[in-house]
Amino acid sequence: MENGLLNLKAMDSEQLREHGHKMVDFIADYYKNIENFPVLSQVEPGYLRKLLPDSAPVQPESLESVLEDVQTKILPGVTHWQSPDYFAYFPSNSSVAGFLGEMLSGGINMVGFSWITSPAATELEMIVLDWLANLLKLPSDFLSKGPGGGAIQGTASEALLVVLLAARDKVLREVGKDALGRLVVYGSDQTHSSLLKACQIAGIHPENCRLLRTDTYNEYALSPESLTDAISHDVASGLIPLFLCATIGTTSSTAVDPLLALGKITKRYGIWFHVDAAYAGSACICPEYRHHLNGVEEADSFNMNCHKWFLTNFDCSALWIKDRSALIQALSTTPEFLKNKASQEGTVVDYKDWQIPLGRRFRSLKLWMVLRLYGVENLQSYIRNHINLAKKFEDLVAQDPRFEIVATRTFSLVCFRLLPANKNEEYVNKVNRELLDAVNSSGKIFISHTVLSGKYVLRFVVGAPLTEERHVIGAWKLFQEAASTFIEN
Amino acid sequence: MENGLLNLKAMDSEQLREHGHKMVDFIADYYKNIENFPVLSQVEPGYLRKLLPDSAPVQPESLESVLEDVQTKILPGVTHWQSPDYFAYFPSNSSVAGFLGEMLSGGINMVGFSWITSPAATELEMIVLDWLANLLKLPSDFLSKGPGGGAIQGTASEALLVVLLAARDKVLREVGKDALGRLVVYGSDQTHSSLLKACQIAGIHPENCRLLRTDTYNEYALSPESLTDAISHDVASGLIPLFLCATIGTTSSTAVDPLLALGKITKRYGIWFHVDAAYAGSACICPEYRHHLNGVEEADSFNMNCHKWFLTNFDCSALWIKDRSALIQALSTTPEFLKNKASQEGTVVDYKDWQIPLGRRFRSLKLWMVLRLYGVENLQSYIRNHINLAKKFEDLVAQDPRFEIVATRTFSLVCFRLLPANKNEEYVNKVNRELLDAVNSSGKIFISHTVLSGKYVLRFVVGAPLTEERHVIGAWKLFQEAASTFIEN
Repeated sequence: MENGLLNLKAMDSEQLREHGHKMVDFIADYYKNIENFPVLSQVEPGYLRKLLPDSAPVQPESLESVLEDVQTKILPGVTHWQSPDYFAYFPSNSSVAGFLGEMLSGGINMVGFSWITSPAATELEMIVLDWLANLLKLPSDFLSKGPGGGAIQGTASEALLVVLLAARDKVLREVGKDALGRLVVYGSDQTHSSLLKACQIAGIHPENCRLLRTDTYNEYALSPESLTDAISHDVASGLIPLFLCATIGTTSSTAVDPLLALGKITKRYGIWFHVDAAYAGSACICPEYRHHLNGVEEADSFNMNCHKWFLTNFDCSALWIKDRSALIQALSTTPEFLKNKASQEGTVVDYKDWQIPLGRRFRSLKLWMVLRLYGVENLQSYIRNHINLAKKFEDLVAQDPRFEIVATRTFSLVCFRLLPANKNEEYVNKVNRELLDAVNSSGKIFISHTVLSGKYVLRFVVGAPLTEERHVIGAWKLFQEAASTFIEN
Repeated sequence: MENGLLNLKAMDSEQLREHGHKMVDFIADYYKNIENFPVLSQVEPGYLRKLLPDSAPVQPESLESVLEDVQTKILPGVTHWQSPDYFAYFPSNSSVAGFLGEMLSGGINMVGFSWITSPAATELEMIVLDWLANLLKLPSDFLSKGPGGGAIQGTASEALLVVLLAARDKVLREVGKDALGRLVVYGSDQTHSSLLKACQIAGIHPENCRLLRTDTYNEYALSPESLTDAISHDVASGLIPLFLCATIGTTSSTAVDPLLALGKITKRYGIWFHVDAAYAGSACICPEYRHHLNGVEEADSFNMNCHKWFLTNFDCSALWIKDRSALIQALSTTPEFLKNKASQEGTVVDYKDWQIPLGRRFRSLKLWMVLRLYGVENLQSYIRNHINLAKKFEDLVAQDPRFEIVATRTFSLVCFRLLPANKNEEYVNKVNRELLDAVNSSGKIFISHTVLSGKYVLRFVVGAPLTEERHVIGAWKLFQEAASTFIEN
């Protein structure tokens, strides 16, 4: 038969329609029943190999048999990030609009490395990132009409890596490539681990990566004084300050680094200034949270993950840069087989030169659909609702003398811990580790942890699209019940 | 209202169902009518900004209005990679099964950086890559039960980069990191441009990247003699041979490098041996093409893009490695907030340490669904059908004395050109450039080009899922008609 496929054709509009409708119903039913699953998967390592055959089938199987396996074998091994009882790490939003955009992108399935391979993919990305930059009131240097612009990366790690490479190569062009071992990168001990990984990839020596100490007295923000001290010391030692990564909303406690003061220091020393707002950037579309971005006008690059808290299905990490030529010089390749008139005339953007991979999906579609199907006001309400729910949880914790709040809540993350009568730090940490295990292994909620100033801390983040007040209250009851067990012991 | 969204909720099973069905119909209709679009988009740079508003809407809009815009504003700017008349670059297959798998992955929308964040995502990936490794008859060292294993990367560029980093750091641990400037990487002048880009990212000096000259007499394959010569010269100069990238099916002409001979050389010098079979790997599931992989047992790593010619929607690039510890040592980070029992007990794989980004999608679902919904025999027939169609096209070209075949066809790519009476090379190149522009701007088909030994060459690749014999014959008629115009001039 056509395309050599006996039953299901490689592609066929009516088979896609028939099977696509079945899959939509399967996914809708998944969301309908999502509260019935343990949030954190409770399977043992290696569980799936026992359930699946050792080799691919020679003959085709039906969609029904595959979906039966998804239901009975795959879903028990899924940790349900979209469950309303998911409060771990940071959120990773799925939404109706984001899902539809992802579906459309998968349907068109074009590979947009150059403008010519689908002009709409490149141009929609430029337009939608301009829209979002304006919502965030980013400086106009980040808009696509000037020498800067935005591009969608897969993750904040990739965004950070490409701007580090741009900064590295810009400086090495000036001072010579043998200076690689003298380049120094700065962040705080709260900066995301992707900074160290990016340095490792870029060949920047780990011992030249300064993760400056933060402390509880200034809420784990990077202190401008400690940055100045470190830079002065490095310059005196003959090293070359290259790059600063500041964070709006750190992973452990959503600390906010003081952009304005840090930015002025980077200007003085000619350091590339990157701002990582992967999680908290979304909140800054609300006027009452925008002040956290004050000073972003000093930045050379800025990143926010629309796939975290902005209803855009994973992956979609928005990166803006003031000088796109630095990025393109670091990442451009133009083999003969990719040459084309539009690129050679220089009138178009070829996003292949803004990223690590060559190929890229049509990810702007889902961000565009999120912005259009929800509209700005509803997106602001969405953020505010989560922050209010986090505040509600914080209030509940504060009212229970057995618990303490460990860091000030700024967005939708509450950092807290159980404080038993025996306040020996090691014992307290052990109790909280066990408390975390107890609530997670109940399957009723999923939270994660961090360590702040030596304290083992429970992180409770509100950010799943289905979470309502009843889920937050239910989660709190779970902590209270578990606490009773631990305190009695 | 709930979640603060007035009309469409952030997530709601029944709204997802209703809107999802509409989107499935939209996409099915797209495929139904796909032959009516110009294959290569005919828009002018900047066309979309004139059609879209300057800012995101404050109030929500309806799905109907968005889909209307997709139809009238976006699709004219799409180059239709899934059109049966698409013969450019290499294929990028969409299929019913791949589309369904992508949809399911988007629906579950989990972020699988560590085993615990969805055990099924990690385990299915291990199982399915074992299945595929067995189909390709890869050496058992690449299977997950030993010290090696497979992982899905976004693209072949990322696969190449991560193994280059693994090789780099392994050698630098032995000889000291200051030796970075002495590391040498080898490939041929036909190796994909992602090798140079990976070197640039990894800090390997471009002048230490040897793209050894190939020639028409051995069909553009890398010659073992030239590799030995280059290595000997480098060793004599005090440089350190690090890495060889061999290719099965080069981009320009699908040349096949002699793995066995090259592999023996790499063993002698302790060089990391990577095999890039991004496009042609798919063909090697057919017994009659498997011999092209002979010698892969010498390789340290092997890569094939399931998103090219294996019916798996973009992106899904399968990478196998013999020594996963080298990869993990280069790319691992374990901040406190990612620590968990399963990871610390060392009984699980955390794929975050096998790749550049931290987050990752549930991409194994679509590959699993492709293997199950089609079955191995049908996948083999699918490949054979495309190769037969390419052979058909090659026969048609060969029968027309106005054209010449420029390189031997090995898989589904035909390299050819028009040969006018005036055989001045510059003139011939100009005529073929114009011929390419003429057929592409007709909108009826889309092909791309390359340059081989100074000759401008037309590349005709059969590989789109909807392509049938009538499309290949129609394309050939287009070339014949255009040729008449050019030959007469």
